[in-house]
Amino acid sequence: MRIGLDMMGGDFAPTEAVKGVKLYLDTVASDVHLVLIGDEQQLAPLIAEAQLDQSKYSVVHSSQVIGMDEHPTKALKEKPQSSISIGFHLLKNEKIDAFISAGNTGAMMVGTYYSIKAIEGVQRPTISTLVPRENGTYGLLLDVGINADCKPENLAQFALLGSLYSKHILGVPDPKVGLLNIGEEEGKGNLLAQATYPLLKESKQINFVGNIEGRDILSEKADVIVCEGFTGNIVLKMAESFHEIALRRNIQDDYMKKFDSESYGGTPVLGVSKPVIIGHGISKGTAFKNMIQLSQQMIESKLLEKIKESFVVVAKDAQQ
Amino acid sequence: MRIGLDMMGGDFAPTEAVKGVKLYLDTVASDVHLVLIGDEQQLAPLIAEAQLDQSKYSVVHSSQVIGMDEHPTKALKEKPQSSISIGFHLLKNEKIDAFISAGNTGAMMVGTYYSIKAIEGVQRPTISTLVPRENGTYGLLLDVGINADCKPENLAQFALLGSLYSKHILGVPDPKVGLLNIGEEEGKGNLLAQATYPLLKESKQINFVGNIEGRDILSEKADVIVCEGFTGNIVLKMAESFHEIALRRNIQDDYMKKFDSESYGGTPVLGVSKPVIIGHGISKGTAFKNMIQLSQQMIESKLLEKIKESFVVVAKDAQQ
Repeated sequence: MRIGLDMMGGDFAPTEAVKGVKLYLDTVASDVHLVLIGDEQQLAPLIAEAQLDQSKYSVVHSSQVIGMDEHPTKALKEKPQSSISIGFHLLKNEKIDAFISAGNTGAMMVGTYYSIKAIEGVQRPTISTLVPRENGTYGLLLDVGINADCKPENLAQFALLGSLYSKHILGVPDPKVGLLNIGEEEGKGNLLAQATYPLLKESKQINFVGNIEGRDILSEKADVIVCEGFTGNIVLKMAESFHEIALRRNIQDDYMKKFDSESYGGTPVLGVSKPVIIGHGISKGTAFKNMIQLSQQMIESKLLEKIKESFVVVAKDAQQ
Repeated sequence: MRIGLDMMGGDFAPTEAVKGVKLYLDTVASDVHLVLIGDEQQLAPLIAEAQLDQSKYSVVHSSQVIGMDEHPTKALKEKPQSSISIGFHLLKNEKIDAFISAGNTGAMMVGTYYSIKAIEGVQRPTISTLVPRENGTYGLLLDVGINADCKPENLAQFALLGSLYSKHILGVPDPKVGLLNIGEEEGKGNLLAQATYPLLKESKQINFVGNIEGRDILSEKADVIVCEGFTGNIVLKMAESFHEIALRRNIQDDYMKKFDSESYGGTPVLGVSKPVIIGHGISKGTAFKNMIQLSQQMIESKLLEKIKESFVVVAKDAQQ
């Protein structure tokens, strides 16, 4: 198993990326081979200092970097030697089995769309966030930003993608799916939510439990919460701001600490045919380590095969 | 000045409503006359116990109550002797100058639409929530639930209504208006946000400062944040859940305490021709007191006259 890591992506690259690799190799036993994509000259002293096991990694040189604020399509076109461009090239040509970056999110999305395909039947790939709950488990909220406007069918697909992720990666046997809404009863909400409810109710592939209000996002009422990416992104960033406020105000609380994006690393792009994981720009060592581990889990659990099988059913149902 | 209060609305009525009246009369000097609408038999012993100043209030008997979960339109039709029905009757006939209830929100909204008119030029009346900031001031977020689907023009009107409220009630001289969105630059967001941005930018009646992301809702970047009621309601309820979690986990922090709905009482229905204030179902004494005080402020500041004047300008601009 070969996992590719963009060593130049994120606010603290490449130092923290190397730290993440070290942490992963030191703490996780696996036969994963890491492909470190980045500037050889910058990486060499950091790798030497970290004393990485040479049998566990190889370095692929990249001479360019896509900045965090560059225009995604333009940057990918003009910088074929960037770590992100090379990463997708390797992924497309099966030189690596997964690709991770904490770099320019837009470039990662565009790269994903251009280099690898959506799984057959998936209308819109999606990104999610883990939702920490007080009982120590994690819920999943999706979409959190790449699909700002959605149709009911998109949300129904997010529900299925999220359920499979919750089951195979988070270990929830029969994930409860909730529709983010502004009232509990069927018929409540905006036009999108009203039209989505019956689709979720009728689906035999998910365990739909009804509407979930804003006050229940952090509860255990649902394991998978679906919404369009506009609301999902606002919720995600507001939760992050609560975490920052808690830090700034020196609030010592184990639960509040779990909102730290560092603890879960990054989000996979769900619905595409290969594992792509996008990290937060502020990722540090632990986040990189967690993203490598998540890639490994996605490959070992055969999540993408399971998504493919489920969407064959979706495609068949659509034809009937 | 006569302010009408539904004594039967809310989870802890009439006990907490009477406490609120007592608190108001004891702590706020004013020539307000309170009209207490409720069941005389239930109110009498509570009022006697509270030793209210008899010159400051009168009781209007109501023999029916609209429950928190009743269907709004049906309940208002079938219960003409309910405290909410009587309250709107008094407001319509100028027996009171403002009406407050912590009862059935739907019934309050329907009652408002049927009994008193929207201000000329206002397409959609709206409700808002105060947003506590760490520096002790309050921002305003609107709409928070009654307009789940909006057009760009609606959001532009919320911006103006919110600005006037921020200026005349919250005392912010030139309120900064932000558009809730999922990116900072113009052109970001869903179709609604993309179409709303230029309207806000062009408006001469507001001080537009651009897009506001989820992480900045609690900051001082904007004093008035506009969005459709779906996202606004999710944000509001999620913030309330953070407050509940902080309470449950015994987190002692002055800022977190400010998310208690008790501290600001209720939301006025903005855009209608008379002051109507809707309280949270869980309102207790302080919330009732604060709602009475807010009604008084709305009348004394002549907020509604100012809204009327501003919307004459809107109507004229629309004709040109």
